[in-house]
Amino acid sequence: MNRENKIGSYHFVAEPFHVDFNGELTMGVLGNHLLNCAGFHATERGFGIATLNEENYTWVLSRLAIELDEMPCQYEDFSIQTWVENVYRLFTDRNFAIVDKEGRKIGYARSVWAMISLNTRKPADLLTLHEGSIMDYVCDEPCPIEKPSRIKVAAKEPQAVLTAKYSDIDINGHVNSIRYIEHILDLFPIELYREKRIRRFEMAYVAEGYYGDKLSFFCDEASEDEYHIEVRKNGEEVLCRSKVIFADK
Amino acid sequence: MNRENKIGSYHFVAEPFHVDFNGELTMGVLGNHLLNCAGFHATERGFGIATLNEENYTWVLSRLAIELDEMPCQYEDFSIQTWVENVYRLFTDRNFAIVDKEGRKIGYARSVWAMISLNTRKPADLLTLHEGSIMDYVCDEPCPIEKPSRIKVAAKEPQAVLTAKYSDIDINGHVNSIRYIEHILDLFPIELYREKRIRRFEMAYVAEGYYGDKLSFFCDEASEDEYHIEVRKNGEEVLCRSKVIFADK
Repeated sequence: MNRENKIGSYHFVAEPFHVDFNGELTMGVLGNHLLNCAGFHATERGFGIATLNEENYTWVLSRLAIELDEMPCQYEDFSIQTWVENVYRLFTDRNFAIVDKEGRKIGYARSVWAMISLNTRKPADLLTLHEGSIMDYVCDEPCPIEKPSRIKVAAKEPQAVLTAKYSDIDINGHVNSIRYIEHILDLFPIELYREKRIRRFEMAYVAEGYYGDKLSFFCDEASEDEYHIEVRKNGEEVLCRSKVIFADK
Repeated sequence: MNRENKIGSYHFVAEPFHVDFNGELTMGVLGNHLLNCAGFHATERGFGIATLNEENYTWVLSRLAIELDEMPCQYEDFSIQTWVENVYRLFTDRNFAIVDKEGRKIGYARSVWAMISLNTRKPADLLTLHEGSIMDYVCDEPCPIEKPSRIKVAAKEPQAVLTAKYSDIDINGHVNSIRYIEHILDLFPIELYREKRIRRFEMAYVAEGYYGDKLSFFCDEASEDEYHIEVRKNGEEVLCRSKVIFADK
């Protein structure tokens, strides 16, 4: 199979209500585009969620790491390329490049996905999916950013607590993966976003939150410009962890 | 000018993170698409925000009313048509039709816009804009829903209070028009959305909210299935008012 068919490329424009007060695309919207591209790419190659659902399986996002030199600005065209880097028995690595209107790669992302059975909620063996045909799409395109890391948070007191509302909930009845990104970035004062930009952003999705859950956000300042966040439900179960690394503009 | 050139039509797909727990497009996302279509249509005809900004003017959304028989569902294609219904000295009426994948009109929307000077923040005379050329686009396409109405709220105690955060703020430094829609719809319990759908939704934008403002949401149950909401900043100044009318599914 030729390389072109392994890499999907999708075009976007940074819409006015999708940029922050700096006029730059928000991380939540970029995350949404990345996940949509994953869906487009998989669907076009026969292993999208709709096909999997027919067989009572679904994709579950486990990790996401995004690293950027810059963000697209309001009204700017950009595109996202995506491809499969590895397929293991229980996980697959899908990578992304964010490409500006001049064709320069301004950022990359890495994601890790599992396939689970809708009946048992247990992970399924990817190597046997459609007789292993997903492996035909594995591609050695470079993705020069670090893999998602292990995140540990020591903070004992939450920095913010909120209740999951109607707008937070997705079609599966879970707190939507993108909303966590927005709520986490809302922990930081706007002044920080005036002076700094997000250089690297990581999410590790651990368990599902539901409507009415009390979401507590615990945050460590791990070093200058680096923050580790843990979101717990009803003060106990960990729902997700995140790492946010800022850089001077 | 022929009718085709007066009506803009734009295609969308209901993305997975843009639908609610019922699998239906959220009102916030629909509102975002409507405002984008207004921008596309105006830009293509020479009176978009970028052109106006060069002359130190901008468009300001004053009213929005959306009425629907149904919402597009996850992964469904739909399109939005938009046209200018009226141009007055200080306001222009722009209407919309929401068209499902079979070409059926499943909803309509009305919006009212003013043009203001970026220097004085005062309204500008639309009849003299580009020698009145915006009038060339006025179109008598039907829009069989009521005009935005007057909304009065009597409630003395807020139903919710929140502080405007980083994700709420748009490129102008104001609380983003779409976020108000989401916050307002989050006032209702998820059970309501299980049994009812939003038949009509109205927003009247009155003043600007800023980062850190304490937004208080006052809500009257005007009649069964009809709610009137007022959002005030720091307990005083009215930022916007909304009317939400539910119907049985």
